[in-house]
Amino acid sequence: MSHFPEPVDELIEKLTLFPGVGKKSARRLAFYLLGESREKAVEIATSIVNVKDKVYNCSRCYNIAASDPCQICKDPKRNHNKICVVQDPRDVFAFEETGSYRGLYHVLGGVLSPLNGVGPEDLNIDGLIPRLEDIDEVILAINPTRDGETTAIYLAKLIKKRNIKVTRVAQGLPMGVDIEYADNVTLTRALEGRTDI
Amino acid sequence: MSHFPEPVDELIEKLTLFPGVGKKSARRLAFYLLGESREKAVEIATSIVNVKDKVYNCSRCYNIAASDPCQICKDPKRNHNKICVVQDPRDVFAFEETGSYRGLYHVLGGVLSPLNGVGPEDLNIDGLIPRLEDIDEVILAINPTRDGETTAIYLAKLIKKRNIKVTRVAQGLPMGVDIEYADNVTLTRALEGRTDI
Repeated sequence: MSHFPEPVDELIEKLTLFPGVGKKSARRLAFYLLGESREKAVEIATSIVNVKDKVYNCSRCYNIAASDPCQICKDPKRNHNKICVVQDPRDVFAFEETGSYRGLYHVLGGVLSPLNGVGPEDLNIDGLIPRLEDIDEVILAINPTRDGETTAIYLAKLIKKRNIKVTRVAQGLPMGVDIEYADNVTLTRALEGRTDI
Repeated sequence: MSHFPEPVDELIEKLTLFPGVGKKSARRLAFYLLGESREKAVEIATSIVNVKDKVYNCSRCYNIAASDPCQICKDPKRNHNKICVVQDPRDVFAFEETGSYRGLYHVLGGVLSPLNGVGPEDLNIDGLIPRLEDIDEVILAINPTRDGETTAIYLAKLIKKRNIKVTRVAQGLPMGVDIEYADNVTLTRALEGRTDI
């Protein structure tokens, strides 16, 4: 039985729903809030509801955005002939942070996973097809996991039928890694994908 | 420059205010919320505001509580002749979880700290004096730090003037510790406080 006042217990319980937040961290967060002003608490609470109320999925690329279409889809300075297909909105932001890609994106919202019952109809694949007009290259940037590979192969087949070039991001050694500690698959892929120097 | 939609950036910024939550954790929490239903987000937001709106300080013992006086102060089954003085509401809950104490509490809200400009008027000491009638023992359970010691000595003087017994919780080796790794002060206190066996 807990000895905290009920609203505190309730908050602790809600905070432990967050990934990586255990009972002890939740307690610390709750007591931090207790020590803060009501205004600060309301601000935090408002931001939480705002991400649900003011963030949408772009109806073209399915990325999260504060407008529809999103900033990227409606940017005339970007290359509208290339689409990079990713699993998750976070992947879009990862690429954007590199500044190395100026084309468009398409967010699948997951990967095919027969074992977990995720089929093509559960992903944003239908929305990709009508976007393929005027596209000269589709870059697949899907996580190199087993389900990711399956998804990449499925999509490649689907897109190639329309005579569009399909590429995938290179697999190999990440920067700064020790070859000694790289896993077998990564090393094999790095060898297979070797380039002239 | 961030590439997240503004409400997401705003939430991330607010979440990093929490102790122990860095930029990366805040991102993970924000994306968790994006994936949850609006109802769940509203529930969490409501709990956050509730701890500010529905949790008070007990006007007797200054502990946090959902009612005033708190459950402990108004419990007739507790020993109303003993007061345990602690720094923080969390200490009350720590003692309550042991189940070993059935008296009342008094929460100071901090310790005297001349270096940080915290004087007796900044703590809930004034409220303690009128509570001393009918009390036969005051137990000081203040953290054994330098400022804690100062506070304990100050309070002991104040209370003893009223011919009330003042005790403090024992200092010594915590359970499960290796004597080899105990610090000097702890070992000295453990020796000084040795008891017959």
